[in-house]
Order: sequence, then C-alpha cells, then structure tokens
Amino acid sequence: MALVSWVMDYTIAFCQQAQKWMYGGLDSNMLLQYLAWVTYPVVLITFSAGFTQILAPQAVGSGIPEMKTILRGVVLKEYLTFKTFVAKVIGLTCALGSGMPLGKEGPFVHVASLCAALLSKFMALFGGIYMNELRNTEMLSAACAVGVGCCFAAPIGGVLFSIEVTSTFFAVRNYWRGFFAATFSAFIFRVLAVWNQDEETITALFKTRFRLDFPFDLQELPAFAVLGIASGFAGALFVYLNRLIVESMRKQKTINKFLLKKRLVYPALVTLLVSTLTFPPGFGQFMAGQLTQHESLVALFDNRTWYKQGVSEDFDYLSQPQAWNHPHVSVFITLLLFIVMKFWMSAVATTMPVPCGAFMPVFLIGAAFGRLVGESMAAVFPDGIHADGTVYPIVPGGYAVVGAAALSGAVTHTVSTAVIVFELTGQISHILPVMIAVILANAVAQSLQPSLYDSIIRIQKLPYLPELGWGQEKYNIRVEDIMVRDVSHITLTSSYRELQEALMSGQLKTLALVESSDSMILLGSIERSQLQCLIAQQLGRSRRLEYLRERAQDNGTHLPTLSQDTPPKSGRGVRFLVSTMALERGSEFSLRVDFQCLCCAPPYVSHYIQFTHFFQITATFCLCCLFFFWKSNAGSMTPKRRRPKRVRITMAIAEWEEHQLDEPVNFNNCKIDPAPFQLVERTSLHKTHTIFSLLGLDHTYVTSTGRLVGVVSLKELRKAIEGSVTVTGVKVRPPLASFRDSGTSTSVSEVTELHKLWNRHRSMSLPREPNPDSMETCV
Amino acid sequence: MALVSWVMDYTIAFCQQAQKWMYGGLDSNMLLQYLAWVTYPVVLITFSAGFTQILAPQAVGSGIPEMKTILRGVVLKEYLTFKTFVAKVIGLTCALGSGMPLGKEGPFVHVASLCAALLSKFMALFGGIYMNELRNTEMLSAACAVGVGCCFAAPIGGVLFSIEVTSTFFAVRNYWRGFFAATFSAFIFRVLAVWNQDEETITALFKTRFRLDFPFDLQELPAFAVLGIASGFAGALFVYLNRLIVESMRKQKTINKFLLKKRLVYPALVTLLVSTLTFPPGFGQFMAGQLTQHESLVALFDNRTWYKQGVSEDFDYLSQPQAWNHPHVSVFITLLLFIVMKFWMSAVATTMPVPCGAFMPVFLIGAAFGRLVGESMAAVFPDGIHADGTVYPIVPGGYAVVGAAALSGAVTHTVSTAVIVFELTGQISHILPVMIAVILANAVAQSLQPSLYDSIIRIQKLPYLPELGWGQEKYNIRVEDIMVRDVSHITLTSSYRELQEALMSGQLKTLALVESSDSMILLGSIERSQLQCLIAQQLGRSRRLEYLRERAQDNGTHLPTLSQDTPPKSGRGVRFLVSTMALERGSEFSLRVDFQCLCCAPPYVSHYIQFTHFFQITATFCLCCLFFFWKSNAGSMTPKRRRPKRVRITMAIAEWEEHQLDEPVNFNNCKIDPAPFQLVERTSLHKTHTIFSLLGLDHTYVTSTGRLVGVVSLKELRKAIEGSVTVTGVKVRPPLASFRDSGTSTSVSEVTELHKLWNRHRSMSLPREPNPDSMETCV
Repeated sequence: MALVSWVMDYTIAFCQQAQKWMYGGLDSNMLLQYLAWVTYPVVLITFSAGFTQILAPQAVGSGIPEMKTILRGVVLKEYLTFKTFVAKVIGLTCALGSGMPLGKEGPFVHVASLCAALLSKFMALFGGIYMNELRNTEMLSAACAVGVGCCFAAPIGGVLFSIEVTSTFFAVRNYWRGFFAATFSAFIFRVLAVWNQDEETITALFKTRFRLDFPFDLQELPAFAVLGIASGFAGALFVYLNRLIVESMRKQKTINKFLLKKRLVYPALVTLLVSTLTFPPGFGQFMAGQLTQHESLVALFDNRTWYKQGVSEDFDYLSQPQAWNHPHVSVFITLLLFIVMKFWMSAVATTMPVPCGAFMPVFLIGAAFGRLVGESMAAVFPDGIHADGTVYPIVPGGYAVVGAAALSGAVTHTVSTAVIVFELTGQISHILPVMIAVILANAVAQSLQPSLYDSIIRIQKLPYLPELGWGQEKYNIRVEDIMVRDVSHITLTSSYRELQEALMSGQLKTLALVESSDSMILLGSIERSQLQCLIAQQLGRSRRLEYLRERAQDNGTHLPTLSQDTPPKSGRGVRFLVSTMALERGSEFSLRVDFQCLCCAPPYVSHYIQFTHFFQITATFCLCCLFFFWKSNAGSMTPKRRRPKRVRITMAIAEWEEHQLDEPVNFNNCKIDPAPFQLVERTSLHKTHTIFSLLGLDHTYVTSTGRLVGVVSLKELRKAIEGSVTVTGVKVRPPLASFRDSGTSTSVSEVTELHKLWNRHRSMSLPREPNPDSMETCV
Repeated sequence: MALVSWVMDYTIAFCQQAQKWMYGGLDSNMLLQYLAWVTYPVVLITFSAGFTQILAPQAVGSGIPEMKTILRGVVLKEYLTFKTFVAKVIGLTCALGSGMPLGKEGPFVHVASLCAALLSKFMALFGGIYMNELRNTEMLSAACAVGVGCCFAAPIGGVLFSIEVTSTFFAVRNYWRGFFAATFSAFIFRVLAVWNQDEETITALFKTRFRLDFPFDLQELPAFAVLGIASGFAGALFVYLNRLIVESMRKQKTINKFLLKKRLVYPALVTLLVSTLTFPPGFGQFMAGQLTQHESLVALFDNRTWYKQGVSEDFDYLSQPQAWNHPHVSVFITLLLFIVMKFWMSAVATTMPVPCGAFMPVFLIGAAFGRLVGESMAAVFPDGIHADGTVYPIVPGGYAVVGAAALSGAVTHTVSTAVIVFELTGQISHILPVMIAVILANAVAQSLQPSLYDSIIRIQKLPYLPELGWGQEKYNIRVEDIMVRDVSHITLTSSYRELQEALMSGQLKTLALVESSDSMILLGSIERSQLQCLIAQQLGRSRRLEYLRERAQDNGTHLPTLSQDTPPKSGRGVRFLVSTMALERGSEFSLRVDFQCLCCAPPYVSHYIQFTHFFQITATFCLCCLFFFWKSNAGSMTPKRRRPKRVRITMAIAEWEEHQLDEPVNFNNCKIDPAPFQLVERTSLHKTHTIFSLLGLDHTYVTSTGRLVGVVSLKELRKAIEGSVTVTGVKVRPPLASFRDSGTSTSVSEVTELHKLWNRHRSMSLPREPNPDSMETCV
C-alpha cells in the first residue's frame, strides 16, 4: 500500500506539474492559457468517471461508508474485487491529478481494504488460518488503518481514525495489528521519499517550524475555543450542503434522467465551472488559484505572520505565501474568498461520480479558516498578549493547524484528526488547543448533523445500523414492540410445497426451522440457498428421468433405453446443454419446466462431472441431442397432431411434480445452524442494538421459552431507532410502546405468565395442602 | 482529578525537597547525613503502609488490575469506597514523597475511578440517568482515561493507554467521552502549573528540544530496532522478576508467616536497602542517587551528548547532567549501574504493600537504557552517520525517548506508550523510531510473558478472563467439552427442600428455572438472594408463630396470648434481640432453629420497624424477655424434668418445618430474569470467549432446542483457555476434544439428531408415500 500510495502521489504531482507547465508555457495568449487550464482537468475527470463507470461502478466515491457497512457484517462482495481495485487506483489518480478539490484519504481506505481482501483470497489458496471468515474482518480492520496511515504518513492517527470511522465496538486485539500494519506502511511510504532524494530523512509530510518554548499563550485559548465551535457549525453545514446537492439533483426528475443517460456530462460541467473560477489570471488570483492542495497547505501552516506585509524579506525563500499576497487586496479578503469558494466547490466536487474523498479538501478549508482567525488575532494583538516583558507574537500557523483538525473532525465526527495533524505537521506543541477545538467542534457538529460518512450511507441506503441517541426511550422499547410476528418458518414435517412458499415469502438470508407449527420450538436456521438446493434435488432431472422411465416401463415407450444409459451423475453434467438447446428451439412446456427446475439447482452439481465418465457423457449427449432434435423438430413441424401426446406427458409430469411437492422435506443433507441468535421478547432496544452492533448480526429470532415468536432484522431495528430518535431531536414512541407501562407491570405480567405455567403443572400434579394463595396473604 | 494530581505532585516535590534540605544541611557529619537520608523514606513508607493497612487494604498496589476486573463486569465493591480513596491518595503521596522507585500512574487510574464511582453515587441521589448501572461502567471507563491523562498531561495517550490496559472490546461511543474528560483534566492540570508561576504557558511535562530539521538518520533505524527488541526482553524479565519475588516470598512459609504478622517490617526493610544503596556519598554517586525520578528523566531526555565531556560549557545551565558525570567513572558505567540497580530495585519496590505503580520506574529505566544505547552510538559515530556533507550528530536524547516508550510498552503490553512519550516530551519528530521500537518490544514481550497487570491479576487470583492465544484450538473446542453438565436447577414444581438443596450445591449467582426435570426447558434464571428470601418467607417467624398459635389453640397452652400480642411486623422487629438472648444463654434446640431460620430472612425486614409501633414493641419485648428468661432458666436448672415438653414443641416445629419444606415453591413474588444468556453445545470456544468478553458475562446456560443441558462459567472458560494455551507455548487439548473429529462428523451428528426428532414426528403423523429412504438413494 505504501508503494501504491507513493507511486500515486508521484503521478499526481507529475500531472499537476504538467498542467502548470502548459499553463506557464502559454502565457502569451490568455485564451489559449485558459483553454489549457480548463481542458486538462475536464479531460482527466471525464476519463476518470468514464473509466470507473465502465470497469467497476462500485469504485465511485469515498469507500469509507461501504467499509463501515462491510465491517458491520453486511456482505457487499462486489466492493472487494480486483476490478474495483484497478478502477479505484487509476480513477483516483486521474481525479486527483486534475487538481480539483478532492481527497485521497477515503478512497485509500477502500484501496487498502481491497488489497487486504485480495491478499486474503490469495492466501486462502494455501489454506490455513486465512480460510477463516473472522480473519478476513481482522484483515479489513487493519487495512483501514493502513489506508489512512500510508496516505498521511500518520500511523497512530490512521489507526484511531479508522476505528472511529468504521467501528462501533472495537476488539482491542485488532488494535495492535492495525498499529503494526500502519507503522510499516507509513515507514515505507516515507522511506520511498528519502530514496527518491525528495527528503534527507524521514520527517513529517507537512513539517511545521513553530517555536517550542512558548507555542501559545493561555489567553489565546478562548480564540481557539471559538474557532472550534465555528468549525463545528461549518462542518455540519458542509455535510448538509453535500446531501442537499445530491438530493436536489435526484428530485429534479428531468435533470436526473438526463444525467443518468449522459453520465459524463455532470463531472465535466462541474470541473469546467470549478477550474474556470480558479483560473489564476481571472478570479483565481483572489483565491490563490494556482496553488495545488499540497502547496496551499504548506503555505497555510507557515510559521510566519502574513499580515505584516511590510516585512517582505521573510517572503523570499518560499514562493507559496506570495500567491496569497495580492497587490491590491488584503490577505484577509484572499483567505475569506478562498474559504467560501472552496467550501461550496468541495461540497459539489465530492458529489461527482469519480473515486474521491472529502477529507483533504475539508482539512484545507479548515486550515484556511484557522489561518484567517490567526491573522486576525495577530492584527488585533501585534505584540502578542503576554504581559510579562518578553514579546511572544501570535503564530497564525498554529491557528491553521487547529482549524484544520477542528473542521475535519467536525465533518467526520472524529477526534483522532487531532492526532493526524500532529503526525502531519511533526509538532505536538499545540496539543491542548487542538484537542479543545476538536472536542468543541465535535460537540456542535454531532448535535446538528450526522457525520459525512453516515450521511452518505443514508443517501446510498446501505444496510447500516444507526447509532442510538441519548434518552431513556431506548430502555423502554422492547423487542416485542418492533419484531415481525409473522415469521416465515418451516417445520420438521413441512412438505416441499410449504418450503417453496416459505422461500417465496421471506426476505432474510435464513429460514427458521421449528419442531412443529403448534409447538413452534426453534430447532435451528437453514440458509436459503440450502433449501433451494433441497427443492432442486426433489424435482431434479435425475428423479424426473427416473419417474419417466418408470412410467415408460408401464406404457412401453422407448424412453427407458435413454435413461438406462444415463447414470445420475453424468446426467446432471449434461443437463444444461440439453436444456439450453431446448430453450433455443422454443420447445414445449414440459421441457421449459424441466429447465427452470434445473436452473434452481445449486452450482456445485457441476462438480459431479468426472473425467472418468467422459465416454458415458459423450454417448449420452449424442443420444440426448438426437432425441430432442427429433422431438422438437416433430413439435415445430406438426404441432397440432403431436399435441395430445405432449399434453399427456406434460400433464403427467405436472401431476408428478404436484405429488413430489406434497412429500415431506428430507433434511438429511442440509446444513442446519443449530444455534441461531435468539432474544426474548422483553429484551430492551438498547440491549438489542448493543448485541446487533457487537456481534454484527443481520437478524435474530425472538423466542419465548424456546418457542419462536418473532424475528428482528436490521430493518426493523433501524426503523425503531430512527422512529424513536430523529435527527431533528423530536422523539416518537413506537406505536406499541404506549400500550404498556414500564416498571411494575412488567414483573406482574411475567409473574402472571409463569403463574399460568405453574398452575398448569399444579393441576397435572397431585393437589397439595396448604393453598398457595393463603400462604401469600399470611406472608 | 487534575486538582488532586497537582496537589499531590506539589506535596511530593515538597517532601523530596525536604529530604534534600535535611541531607544538605547535615553535610558536616556523614553518619548523621546517612541517617537522615535513610530514616526519612523509611518513616514515610512505613506510615504509608500502616495507614493503608488500617484504613483500606484494598488501596494497596497499582489498581489497574482491579479496574480491569471491574470493567470486565465483576463486582469488587470494596475497591470503590470513599475510605479507599482517602487511603490511596494519602498513602500514594507518602510513598512517592519518599523518593523510592515507585510510580503514580497505576494508582492514579484507581483514584480517578474511585472519584468517578463516588461521583456516580452522589449523582444517583438526584436520580435520572446516573441510576443506570451501564452508565457507571461508562463513567469508570472515562475515569481510567482521566487517571493517565492528568498524571502525565497526556490526554490522547491516556485514553489509548486506558483502553489497551483495561478493555478487551471497546465501545467507540465511550472514546469521545474519554477524550473529553482526559483533555479537560490535562488542561486544568497544566493550567494550575501556569497559575502557580511554575511555567510561562501550557507546555509538555518533560519538554525536549531536539532539532526538528533532521531528527534522526535513516541508517540509525537498525539501532532503534535493536533497542526495541532488547527492551522487549527486558520488559519480560521485569514482569518475571516481579512475579518471582512475590511467589518466592509466599512459598517460604516462615518468612510469609513473619511478614503477615509484622506487615510493616517488609516495606521498611526494602526501603532501608534501597535508600542505603542510593546514598549519594556512598554507592549512590555511581548511579546518580541524589536525583529524583523527575530530575533523572529531565536529564536523560537532554538533547546534548554527554559522551563529549570535554565540552563542559554545555553543562553549566542545567545541573542534573552533572550528577551523571562522575569524575573517575565513565558516563557509560554510571548509566549501566543505574539501569541494573534500578531494575531490581523497582521490581522489589513495587511488591511493597503501599499504593504504588510500576509504570514510571520502568519508564525511567527505559530512558536510561535508551540513553546508554544513544551515547554508545554517539561514541561510535562522533560525526553522525549521514554522508552528504552536512554533519548531523547523533541525538542520544532521542534514544532515551525511544527506550522509555519501548520498555514501558513491553512491560504493560501496550503501544500507546508511544503516544504518551510524544505528549510528555512535546515532540513527535521521533515518531517512526518510537513506533517501530514499541512494536518490536511488544512482539517480543507478548510472546514471553503476560503483561505486568495480567501477571498481578494471576498472582491475586482475581476473576479475570485471559486472552485467547493464537492457533486453531480455539475453533475446535466447543462449549460441550468444557461445560458443567450437572446444573443445579429448580423446576416450577420444586419443593422448598429441593430449592434448599439446589442453593447448597451451586456456586453461581443465579439458579436456572426449568419447566420440569424431564423436559428441562429453560424458563429463566433467579438470583440466589431471591430464593433465600423465598425460603425465609416460607419458614419465617410470622408463619411459625401462626402455626404455634393454631397448634396451641388445639392444645390449650399459653402461647396464643403471646402471639396475639405480637403483631407480625413488630414481632419481626424484635426477633434478633430475642434470638441473641437465647443464644447467649445456650438455650434449646428449638430456639436455635428459630434463630437460624430468622437469620436467613432477608435484611429488608428490619425496615418494618415503625416508630408508631414503639409501644407495641416495648410491650412485646418485655413479654418476650420474661417468657424466654423463664423458659431458659427453667431449662438450665431442671433440664431433665422439662425436656419432655420442650422436645414435644421441638418435634412439632421440626415436623412443621419438614412439612413446609415439602411444599411446592410459590414463585409469585420472585423476580425472574426471563432471558438468561444461552449458548448451544456446538458454540466454539472462540465464539464463547468473544461473547463473554463482549457482554461481560459471568456465566451462561447451554441449551439444546430449549432444553437446559449445561452451564459454563468464567471458571470453566478460564480453565479451558489456560489448558489449551499455556504461557510457555505448549498447547494441550482439553480431555473431551480428542474424542471428536472436527469437520464432517459434526454435520452428520447434527443430522442424526434432527433425524431422530423427524422420525419421532413422522411416526406421530400419518404414514406417507413414498418412503424417504428410497428418495434419498435415488437423489
């Protein structure tokens, strides 16, 4: 991953240099210059969007929401394929090379996870520990840390950020692994820079040089706190704006239709708009348009004060701050314009269908905002605030660091951005202002909006479990209020028909197996695919052929010869050929039914083909071909004459099927999970949520003394949580909760139920003295 | 907590200054000087040990192992009382003030937790959210972070360290709270220093001044790696040494007996030995004996090289490095002696029965070890390693930082010590060497020894669940191999006698309630105390009196008059007086039985005493006294004459009791948990461990299709884990696991069991065609 990251960074830097070179070379003609400045990113972004669209549309966007969902236990397999990896890496390189306000972090988490998943798959070929599913989750968890770690050379921040962003409950044993992986990726990432002679030794990515002896004054803390609170509001606004853009485009049906048809128009238009506005000789001159993200950040973290423009000799050895120093406009205006323009540009740009993240643009805006506050402070207190003799001027660069951490923390709802800035800048002297600002920003942003990643999860409708809010409701709502009582189940005595109906009705991955419909005692759960396999076996070709053979033996047709030549195994092997041929020729109903039944057979039957049976297969195939050719030919040429016989066969097969479906299911070769997760009716919503989050469940059965009474899936849980705790803070009780008082009534009803059981047993056993009711009164 | 920490630091510094002042003032007489140097710490430590012993023996030691156990869900209530708080704070201050190699961190985690627990209790008086048990755990979790955070002014490191040390699974929602609390405690802690004019502004506790532009050479990394690996071995050795000392003292029975009798002798002896060895004019001159921990650490983190002793002008403005610079002995010898002596001294000192931690001494030794390696590197490469022109000399202080993080990481098995050193030194420039060294140290130490805290948990035999090791065993062992099959249970039709027997047999906090002994269907679990209450009610005084009254009405004795005068409530109120009197006089069997029965009545009955019944009580008491005095007097004086009557009453009561015990239990007023946690027999050890850790369980029932078949408690689980993964790496399979092959046989047995059920149902239902066995063969 470090190598990927470094190569990507190198390519991106090359792309951006190429754009600058073109722009610089054409300085004789403004129009040509403009065209070069604009066309270059438009081409790159369009290519990125098109390439991703064609190869793997799953590679679009950040990837963190998807990883959060996957680590939650939901299988999104198409997100972890090699195609997605290629699409993401190339798409991301092009998108970032265009110089648009896009980030690398989120997609990099996805790329690292892809890498881990592919590595797991590869290692699983050799067997051993990698075969285990649990191990894969651990790998993915470490991969997320690596993604952030080698993107910013921030191993600790990477681990913490990935934990905060992707997990609800974190196994501390994975922590060590994350650190290990992230440290080595960050190390290799920085060593590559040293080997490439970019750096003399391993240092931070955006090294700052603030003074160590007096980093900030205690009296500056209120300013840092205000910066944190303002960042919190700005972060919430960013998330809201981002969602608003997506949703408004979805609602506008004509726009939506057009954009769905011409998928490349939207990114091209957005890129055109953004690059036009940043065109350096145009509006760009007021917002440091010619700087790349990296250059801007280095400039913003500069340890000198820009406001004192008279001291020009300070500005000579670094060219970046010059870009902010417009001859006619104050640095405050430049910064303000930069913040405002980049804010909406980033919000719009991150909605483009290319692989891109929002962390870095937000980080940059935060740094600019911090710098603005810092420069203002420096303007108000030109000699610093400290009263005791020594002059310690204010360091606006410190404010930029604080602002960057606070705004990115607010948007992502994390506090580990604080650690990331320390690792990015290589200085930890501003730890307390950063921590205070980040915590305040989080407090404000979390109370206003979900995090950017949760917002994307909601927009994309990924199956994710929201967090429980504050309040007591979660303890008063119980599973019985939210569970689905009509559980699609099968019993030990179910017929295949009932099985088929149960398969049609439910949506869950598994079906409950109960002892009988009366007792409803839960025995286990069976996967849907297993049951489909059972039906396929029951109505499969071999049994059908056998039936036909038997029937033919009675009626004296020539079918037996064919069937006797067909051993069950090889018969299965060729059935697709036969069926396909039959379908191609538009053959009769009975054959099509046969095909359908065979299609729902599980894929593993193809394993039955053995090469020792090769000759048998060949012979069977020829016979089959001849037979079906004759049969369908005859059918198509003389439909009316042959129909009575075909109808007779069809009818017979339909009858046979009906008969087969009425048979009881044979569960002998069926994998049954004897321990599906169970809750009881009185489990509180809070406990249910905790268990679902902890164990990464998809659904659980609700049982009462062993009897299946309901099922709760993620969907119900999500509804219950979102019903009880809405974003705006209005709390709604679920419909059934109002029928019940909490507290004493519960124990009464519990006692009543047990009393019933008890009475039942008492009535069965011998009558005893004394009467329990009188005992109760005298106690 | 910040205030407590600051005041404690202030007092400790004052104590240490006082010792220095005494020592300095007596420089005319070496013997007096020695006596002053030695007596002072002996007195302080003895006071600390004695004070703790008298007030709250739970305050002894680090506290982190206990917190780990408490956060695991085990209730150790006596560890969270106000007495313990006072004992810990005062004991710790004295212990640290003595200048012994003891730490503040571990106890501070305990103190913070005590503070949180007391605060929770106080807030619970006002009701609301603090009433919830879960909230308390969250408070404790944040408190641990605060403890470390305000001890080192390291909020981020504090949060991470507390997570690593105390949790197995961590709820990310607590993370934010920990950060919030730790940041503000660290902030206040440092602000107090500013207000006290100790510092100009908020900076790190052990501020370093390493150069920023070239912190270390890439080619120094192997040296850092070696330092990390060596620290790993040293850390494991420290843990081993610490345990060896405790265990060898326990084994030596005579020593053990003596020390148990004279508890203050051991700490006094240890202190005497340690302070004698550090006496500055004596052996202490070779190991910088006059420096306190704080001074030593500041000196070790110094950014200059000590080896170049010629450049003496560098040494003038800081006096601490002078202590290391013995006129006749090389700085290498001084450092080596310091490391070796402090190593065993710390290991011994932390076994003293005073509130003390081991983190800081280990940290100091690590720093000295790092400094030693650094100085050696500086001696070997006097002009640095870098080849390209510029001379970048090696910074031994950087090695000290790396060594401190690596050794403390190895001893505690944490990687967050890396973050702690960054926050302590205020510089993050050595991030990669620190991370690499810490990870390598952890890898070595974790494979050799448990962490210091786990080691203490094992020594103290606290009920804690060990971590699962590597390997496949954990997937092959199942709950059925480790569960206790003979579960003490009660049924709905149980008699009180069976209840009593069940209560006698089991050790768990709850008893299982099943439908009947045949069906064994689990209905719920009942707490032990509830059941004791049930029995007490059944055989309680009021019912006994009622029986006697009824009996007396039949026989015409004078008991009824007494009973009529005694209303049930007040009768309960006086029963202990009566019983005690009876016991004092060595009275008869029947009375003793009565006393026993009354004793097992729950304590809440004493609440029934109401002051409105005062007169009734007084009257009853007088009557009772008279009656029993007459009765017991008569009994003692004329035993043989009175016995027939007493025996008759006794017999009658015994008979009545027998009869009462045979009655079925009335569960009406009993709180039943309808959802005790259940596993199935096939749950793997790995899953069981995960569920126990995640949910903080004490025991779970094992059920098979609703029937109770066994129970697994922490004890069984611990045995299974320790049996399969021993410390030395030898893996033993549990006895039952060898009787079973993993893989296919499982599904076969599953199928067989279900087949049985299925056949049972088929035999009950109508016979169907065709035969399923023939179906099976033809599929």
